[in-house]
Amino acid sequence: MKKDKIKIVLDTNIFINPVERCYFGKTPKEAFNNFLALLEKKNNIICYMPPLIYEELAKFIGVSEILKKAALINKKPPSKYELFIPSLLFYEFIEEMRSRINKGLRVAEKYTRRALHIKNEEEIIKSLREEYRFALREGIIDSKEDCDLLLLAKELKAYLATSDKGLIEWAYKLGINCITAKELNTFVT
Amino acid sequence: MKKDKIKIVLDTNIFINPVERCYFGKTPKEAFNNFLALLEKKNNIICYMPPLIYEELAKFIGVSEILKKAALINKKPPSKYELFIPSLLFYEFIEEMRSRINKGLRVAEKYTRRALHIKNEEEIIKSLREEYRFALREGIIDSKEDCDLLLLAKELKAYLATSDKGLIEWAYKLGINCITAKELNTFVT
Repeated sequence: MKKDKIKIVLDTNIFINPVERCYFGKTPKEAFNNFLALLEKKNNIICYMPPLIYEELAKFIGVSEILKKAALINKKPPSKYELFIPSLLFYEFIEEMRSRINKGLRVAEKYTRRALHIKNEEEIIKSLREEYRFALREGIIDSKEDCDLLLLAKELKAYLATSDKGLIEWAYKLGINCITAKELNTFVT
Repeated sequence: MKKDKIKIVLDTNIFINPVERCYFGKTPKEAFNNFLALLEKKNNIICYMPPLIYEELAKFIGVSEILKKAALINKKPPSKYELFIPSLLFYEFIEEMRSRINKGLRVAEKYTRRALHIKNEEEIIKSLREEYRFALREGIIDSKEDCDLLLLAKELKAYLATSDKGLIEWAYKLGINCITAKELNTFVT
């Protein structure tokens, strides 16, 4: 019986995040190269990366390094003009953003009030940035890169290999099967 | 020849916003009642409101008032589980939100810094709120109500009667025909 092809969309964090990449290597470069060496032997697995993710990874491990075995990874953007998503997802996203925008304002108010009494500008701005980013961006799709990963996995009916919690939560809403680096490792070994 | 039915999804601002409602009446209640009186004579026009918008309007003109001729307005929510939207719209929305979130942080930083030198808490918080809301919410779909109007108009292939700039911009992306109160007036007179 001929084995079914397995499609996997790869996020950078699989090779960058220390907790994830340890399943393949010590450094991002080593993890990526080891993964490709394993992938080369598997002819039933096809891996994809949207161009924005590919560029992001290239910044970490070097363009020349990524180009050596570039053919092993399909650099494919999602067909955003052709692909449709349930409107409920859009609705839920707007609802979630609304609540986060309100949280962001509460954070801004808190730090503005604090600055009336405390004088350490550098420290207060640093804390404001951290707390604001957490309120607005943690656990949600917050970039074109995330959106490309989500849509490409949906379009290809592929697995999505990522450790990004926000991405996983929204991918699950679309019925996308997400896998960790540990699970990805069992696919290629 | 039988005239085609015209479907119109109504936003509350048509009857609430003074610049808009003046085409139908002086107060929200008068504007709404006058509109219904005109609509009653037109059997080729069917008007819709999502339930959330219906409730919003009821707050302005009173539930008993809205119930008198409730049958003239179809209170229909969009079929969010069945309706699909192009993924490009979702992508563009995420891109837009990302840029607004960054703008919101700049606003928060500006006011936190200002509070280090100026001591009028009430005034500074008021300005922060205004500027933050403008950065994050002006000209974008920022509520469940907006989203319902957009999706219902799309689902029904209806006109969308609204003066909300953010809603109009995103409705145009979906090919929805938006009309002002002035234009709506020409439909019913």
